[in-house]
Amino acid sequence: MPFAVRSKLTLRGDRVNVDAGQAVDIVSNIFVQIGCSEDTAGRVAEHLADTSLCGMESHGVMRTLQYTEQFQNGYMTPSAIPRICKTVRGTEEINGGGGIGIPAMHLAYQHGMAMASESGMSVLAIRHVGHTGRHGAFADTAAEQGFLTICVGGGNRHKWRQVAPYGGARAMLPTNPWCIGIPGGEHGPVVLDFATSKIAGGWIYAARSAGALLPEDCLIDVHGNPTRDPEDYFNGGAILPAGGQKGYGLALVGELIGEAMLGPSTTEGNWLLITIDSKGFRESCAAQIAAEEVLKELRECPPAPGFERVEVPGERERDYRTASKGIISIPESTWQQILTLQDSLQD
Amino acid sequence: MPFAVRSKLTLRGDRVNVDAGQAVDIVSNIFVQIGCSEDTAGRVAEHLADTSLCGMESHGVMRTLQYTEQFQNGYMTPSAIPRICKTVRGTEEINGGGGIGIPAMHLAYQHGMAMASESGMSVLAIRHVGHTGRHGAFADTAAEQGFLTICVGGGNRHKWRQVAPYGGARAMLPTNPWCIGIPGGEHGPVVLDFATSKIAGGWIYAARSAGALLPEDCLIDVHGNPTRDPEDYFNGGAILPAGGQKGYGLALVGELIGEAMLGPSTTEGNWLLITIDSKGFRESCAAQIAAEEVLKELRECPPAPGFERVEVPGERERDYRTASKGIISIPESTWQQILTLQDSLQD
Repeated sequence: MPFAVRSKLTLRGDRVNVDAGQAVDIVSNIFVQIGCSEDTAGRVAEHLADTSLCGMESHGVMRTLQYTEQFQNGYMTPSAIPRICKTVRGTEEINGGGGIGIPAMHLAYQHGMAMASESGMSVLAIRHVGHTGRHGAFADTAAEQGFLTICVGGGNRHKWRQVAPYGGARAMLPTNPWCIGIPGGEHGPVVLDFATSKIAGGWIYAARSAGALLPEDCLIDVHGNPTRDPEDYFNGGAILPAGGQKGYGLALVGELIGEAMLGPSTTEGNWLLITIDSKGFRESCAAQIAAEEVLKELRECPPAPGFERVEVPGERERDYRTASKGIISIPESTWQQILTLQDSLQD
Repeated sequence: MPFAVRSKLTLRGDRVNVDAGQAVDIVSNIFVQIGCSEDTAGRVAEHLADTSLCGMESHGVMRTLQYTEQFQNGYMTPSAIPRICKTVRGTEEINGGGGIGIPAMHLAYQHGMAMASESGMSVLAIRHVGHTGRHGAFADTAAEQGFLTICVGGGNRHKWRQVAPYGGARAMLPTNPWCIGIPGGEHGPVVLDFATSKIAGGWIYAARSAGALLPEDCLIDVHGNPTRDPEDYFNGGAILPAGGQKGYGLALVGELIGEAMLGPSTTEGNWLLITIDSKGFRESCAAQIAAEEVLKELRECPPAPGFERVEVPGERERDYRTASKGIISIPESTWQQILTLQDSLQD
C-alpha cells in the first residue's frame, strides 16, 4: 500500500500533496497496528485528515507521530474504548478509559445532542482522555444540526505550566481552550475554538527551531519582562494570557472545571460539554435569517489597514476544506516519517 | 428624610460618604415615586448600593440618574414585573415586560438554580429587559450555593455600534459581556464579568470630559488606524475587541444569541443563562480543596513588573465590600443630583 500512495505524491518544494482517503487508510492502519480498535483508528484518522483539509496543519495528520509515541510510551492506552457512564451523583460522563480523546469527544457531542434533543439541553463530563483533537470540528457539526455548544476544560497544570496569570511573572496555567459553536447564517455555523493564551505553545517550538523571534507582547522572561526570544520561555519565562485579565479568567475557569469540579485530571485534562437545542428558543429559519443579517454586515465591514477582510469565525476552515478538494498538503519530511512508521509496524 | 441623610455626609474633597442603608432608602423611594413596585424599587436600590460597596462605581448608585431618565422617557416601563413564562416551544423564559432588567436577572438566577437543583442544569432566556446591572453579583451568589453559571447575550447593535470586529475598520458590535461564576476555594467563588471589548464605552466619555488620552491599542479612528484621542471615536472610530479575534468571536456569539437565537431584541438586549449544579459532578468539599490548591498557587505567583500581585477574579469586589463597612463613597455632585431628584419627585 505505501507504494500505491507514493505514486500519488506530487512534490512541491518541501511539501507533498496526499489524497485524504489514502491518508486516512495509512494513518488508520498505523493505529490498528499499535493496538487501537478499527473504530478508534478510523475515527482518529478521519479527524486528522479532515483537520488537515481544513488547513489546521498543527492539529492534522502530522499528529500521527505524536499520538503514536504517546500510545507506545504508555501515556495513552491504545485499546481503550470510550463509554457513556452514569456517575454515582447522577450526572452523565464520557469515560475515555485513558485512551486518545478524539473518539471520546465525538461520542460526547453525539450523546450531548441526543440528550438535548429530548430535554432541551445537556451537560456532560469527558474524563480520562488524551488529546481531544480539533474541538471546532465537533462544534461545527453540532451547530449544523441546530445546537449551541460550549466546551471547556483544563487540568494537569503541573505538567503544562505555560501561561502566566494576568499580573504574574511565572507560567502557572495551561493554555486551556474554549470552543463554542452556534448556528449561523447562509454560510453555516459560527465556531470559536481558541486557546486562552496569546499564542499556542507550538509557536514557541517553531520559532526556536527556526531561530526566529516571536511577535511582540506574547512572551515574558523569567523576570516578567517582555521578550521576543523563544529561549527566554524555556529559561523560566511564560506566554501571556490573551486579552490580559480576560484570557486569564477564562483559563482559570477551565482549570477549576478540569481540576476541581470534574477533577482530579488523569491522562491529560477533563472537559465539560454543554449542549443546547437552539430550536427550543426560536424556529431555525427565522434564526438563520436574523443571523445572516448580523454576519453579512461583518463580511462587508471595511478592513483595517493590514487586513484583507473581516472573517466570520468557522468560515475559513470550511472554505479551506472546500478548496482542498480532498487533497492534503503536508511537509514532505513529516509524510515520509509517517510512511516509514507504517513500514516499521508492518515488519 | 433628605435632611436626615445630609447630616450623615462627611465631605472628603469631591466625594461624600453615604451609609448604604440610607442610599437604599433614598434610591428606592425615587423609583417608587416614578412608578416602580416596592419590590422592583427595593431590588434595584439594593443592587446598586451593593455594587457601590463592591467598588464598581460605574454600575453603582450613580446609575439612579440614568435609570430615572430611561423610566421617564419611555425607554423602560417602571411598572413592569418580571415573570417566568413557558414559551410555545417548551423552553423557559424570564419576560421582563420592558422594565429594568435587574429584578428580571435576579429572578432568572433564582429560577435557574431551582431548576438545576432538580435536574442538574437549566437554561433560560431573559427577554424584554432594560439594563441588567452587575451580572457578577448574581453569579457570585449562585456560585456560593454550588452553581456554575454562564450568562451571555447581546443585541441592538443598531443602537450600540461601539466595537470593531477583528480586522475591521468600523464599529459594528456592542461590547457584549460574558459573566461566568464557579465555586472557588476558601475565599469564595471565582467570578468573571467582562466586556468583550478592550475598554468599556464609559471610559471614552470619561476621557473626553477630562480632556485626556486613552491607553494605547484601545481605539481606532475612522480609517482603522490606532488612536488615543477619544474624539476620534466620536468621529466614526471604534473600540478594539479584547484579545483580537477572541474577544471579537465572543462578542459575535453574544450578538447571535441575543438577536438570532433569542431575538429580535426589544428593550435593550436578550440574555441566555446556563446554570449547572456542580455538586452533580463532585462533592463540594473535595472540589473546594482542589480549587484552593489552584488559587493559592496563583495568589503566591511573583508579580510582574508594575503589578502588586496576581488577583483571583471576584475577590477584589468581595474584599472591597468587606472593607467598606457599609459606607458608599460617591462623587458629591452625583449624590447631590440624586437628592435633588428625590426632592423634585416629592413636590
